[in-house]
Amino acid sequence: MTRKPAGIAIVLILGAVAVRAQTVREVSLVITNGIVVTVDAGNRIISPGAVAIDGTDIVAVDTADNVRRQFRGRQTIDATGEVVMPGLVNTHTHAPMVLYRGLADDLALDEWLTKYIFPAEAKTVSPEFVRVGTRLAALEMIQSGTTTFTDMYYFEEEIAKEAKAAGLRGVLGQSVIQFPVADAKTPAEGLARAEKFIQAFRNDPLITPAVAPHAIYTNDSATLKAAREMSMRYGVPTLIHVAETQSEAMTARERGSPTVVSYLESLGFLGPGVVAAHAVWVDDSDIALLKSRGVGVSHNPESNMKLASGVAPVKSYLAQDVAIGLGTDGAASNNDLDMFEAMREASFLQKVSTADPTAVSARAAVQMATIGGARVLGMQKQIGSLEAGKRADVIVVGMSASRQTPMYDPLSHLVYVTRGDDVQTTIVNGKVLMRDRKVLTLDSAAILRDARRWAMTVSAAVAR
Amino acid sequence: MTRKPAGIAIVLILGAVAVRAQTVREVSLVITNGIVVTVDAGNRIISPGAVAIDGTDIVAVDTADNVRRQFRGRQTIDATGEVVMPGLVNTHTHAPMVLYRGLADDLALDEWLTKYIFPAEAKTVSPEFVRVGTRLAALEMIQSGTTTFTDMYYFEEEIAKEAKAAGLRGVLGQSVIQFPVADAKTPAEGLARAEKFIQAFRNDPLITPAVAPHAIYTNDSATLKAAREMSMRYGVPTLIHVAETQSEAMTARERGSPTVVSYLESLGFLGPGVVAAHAVWVDDSDIALLKSRGVGVSHNPESNMKLASGVAPVKSYLAQDVAIGLGTDGAASNNDLDMFEAMREASFLQKVSTADPTAVSARAAVQMATIGGARVLGMQKQIGSLEAGKRADVIVVGMSASRQTPMYDPLSHLVYVTRGDDVQTTIVNGKVLMRDRKVLTLDSAAILRDARRWAMTVSAAVAR
Repeated sequence: MTRKPAGIAIVLILGAVAVRAQTVREVSLVITNGIVVTVDAGNRIISPGAVAIDGTDIVAVDTADNVRRQFRGRQTIDATGEVVMPGLVNTHTHAPMVLYRGLADDLALDEWLTKYIFPAEAKTVSPEFVRVGTRLAALEMIQSGTTTFTDMYYFEEEIAKEAKAAGLRGVLGQSVIQFPVADAKTPAEGLARAEKFIQAFRNDPLITPAVAPHAIYTNDSATLKAAREMSMRYGVPTLIHVAETQSEAMTARERGSPTVVSYLESLGFLGPGVVAAHAVWVDDSDIALLKSRGVGVSHNPESNMKLASGVAPVKSYLAQDVAIGLGTDGAASNNDLDMFEAMREASFLQKVSTADPTAVSARAAVQMATIGGARVLGMQKQIGSLEAGKRADVIVVGMSASRQTPMYDPLSHLVYVTRGDDVQTTIVNGKVLMRDRKVLTLDSAAILRDARRWAMTVSAAVAR
Repeated sequence: MTRKPAGIAIVLILGAVAVRAQTVREVSLVITNGIVVTVDAGNRIISPGAVAIDGTDIVAVDTADNVRRQFRGRQTIDATGEVVMPGLVNTHTHAPMVLYRGLADDLALDEWLTKYIFPAEAKTVSPEFVRVGTRLAALEMIQSGTTTFTDMYYFEEEIAKEAKAAGLRGVLGQSVIQFPVADAKTPAEGLARAEKFIQAFRNDPLITPAVAPHAIYTNDSATLKAAREMSMRYGVPTLIHVAETQSEAMTARERGSPTVVSYLESLGFLGPGVVAAHAVWVDDSDIALLKSRGVGVSHNPESNMKLASGVAPVKSYLAQDVAIGLGTDGAASNNDLDMFEAMREASFLQKVSTADPTAVSARAAVQMATIGGARVLGMQKQIGSLEAGKRADVIVVGMSASRQTPMYDPLSHLVYVTRGDDVQTTIVNGKVLMRDRKVLTLDSAAILRDARRWAMTVSAAVAR
């Protein structure tokens, strides 16, 4: 062992302190000491790791030590023993339908839609209904770690306003549908609403407006084309239900195409920016078309199971590198908005239906719920992983429940034993929306009270 | 309006008070003002309802008003806005395997068993491992509303002691297996252990001892017969894995029978008291055999999905009135012990796999998790529903989370949006094991700490 003269050591220490004082940068928020699941290209897991956030952006993702040396947060969150990961991206829902959750279950799809959901909507959907429902959905999403949601409903401008007030990121599509609905008597009116909606929100930091032609069986070819044309003109996404049920193909065949996807292709509909919800009943050539046209697929395993719609070929989508993310669908067909359950079901359903226990691994499920969803929405450069330069959409997830003990692999636990309720902290665009389970942007008690009041109106409407 | 002389009114009031004072009975516990989901023969839901408990037994299930008139509890639980229901009956698990949860996922069954689970068991299973694991499992089960669990593992006497200490009801089977395992070098040793175990616990108020020949592919016909003979001799249940995977039928065919069930029939194995776990790969004649022999079936949807074992024909079992309950299986293949998830998966999986959204309704799922499970275990006269005269195994389930709002139908919510973590209070045999999420019979912090320490041993064992 050699000894250095004490004088040199002191100089070295002073030098280090000087260097450190010069380079420590003050930032708005540091989340430290967590198990950082980055979902970056290398799928790095850094433990103990830290994420430094300044304003709306992530500025560093590194070991806790390295971040400590470079950043000082005006606010700090200690995530010891917890997972820090990208906020979850829900690629398909109908937020206000939380007010119909559990209204009608265990029914054939036609009966469910035509006897309960459509009549309830005809009698109850209003701007106020949509606001109350969106607030409840926003509360549930913030509480369960969803930071971006993709929506198709009516009075979408109300949904946008409520999402902004809650602090959530949204890709929100104004519905266009052939028959008279609550906010439009004709598809032309729906299209006009959609255009107005796009113009109002196209430069919003949180809201990406979109056009949402409901499905091929609820729109004629002219309306489908007009909706797609409008979304291309404004450079905004097109949200549409595609091949959710087997019977949907009948419409395609009546219009001269063998499948829903090939029918949409015949209209020139398919291309980047199209988000195809469900895409269950597709053949290999449909999958190839979706891939070659750059269409994103939203997989909704819980809805597909509960409504017995079918099993989407997720293994094939992943093998063909189709952009695929997860969605919950509306709470009337799920019945909740918990993306952790969507991950678990995506894995479980694909394993059992393909007789392959290696299908949709925990890692693949986490990817679908984060970066996969971002890619579906064309937002993979902004969100979906923890990387410097991206928007700070981050969640902190508790890992200390008895059902999460012991922990050999955080990815396994995120998918197989974690629920939305384990999320402790939710951050969107650098803003803390929930801290230690307390939602900071919404009045939870008032929201639950308002929802219960609306439920009475809904019950009366379907009782007839 | 007529006025009565004041004197008569006073007499009437005094008379009512006198009658009331005579008939009010003091009991140990009244749970009141809840939404009481009885799961009795009429599937009554009483709201606001109450359950009166005295000692180990339920003495009344009625409207809150009627119970208030007749009973006064030394302890009272106000369940306003909450569901009061029978404790959940888990018909198949391996409690100590919680220490392997998430150790190995997304693997083919053979690789999972032979490369991870069997080697880990060979190196780590000991009485102390079993005690620590059972305590963790008991904590998780109490926290998620399971009041009776059915177990197959090694050192089952340790599991029995820990279950009793935790206050849980258990149907516990000492494993009998052909190859050397942690607690027996030979099947004869396993059988001897089983007999000793039965003798030790056969008069226990909480523990029903059982014999658990693991499966046909891990036991020869002589051992299977001996195990069954022993359980019949003592009048205790026989727990066995039956037709979990498609490959299991190979063993049956090698032994001259077309299916696993027909092979067991050829041994004279099938009869009341047999609990067949999984029973996935069965044909119509197998189902008829299980019915006619009075065999109970434990359906484990999560394990069957995660390990890609297959889909049990639950619709057929229900149509044929086979006794069928739900199980979680061990946490190594699930990865948790949450019976609410088992209900949800039982419903979802059956709907999608039979293309019938009416299959396994919310009501059917709740029945399977309670009275169905009790019937599987031959305990339907003691547990499984809220009825006067039955043991007081009761849970109180919170219903006020955002994802549970609004509520149109409590059965729907129990299956489609509720998690084990919503359980507030768990009562077994009249004893409160958890109150307002605080577990009263176990030291939660010590259990989690011990489990984490054991995980290090397990990690080292599989690393090799």
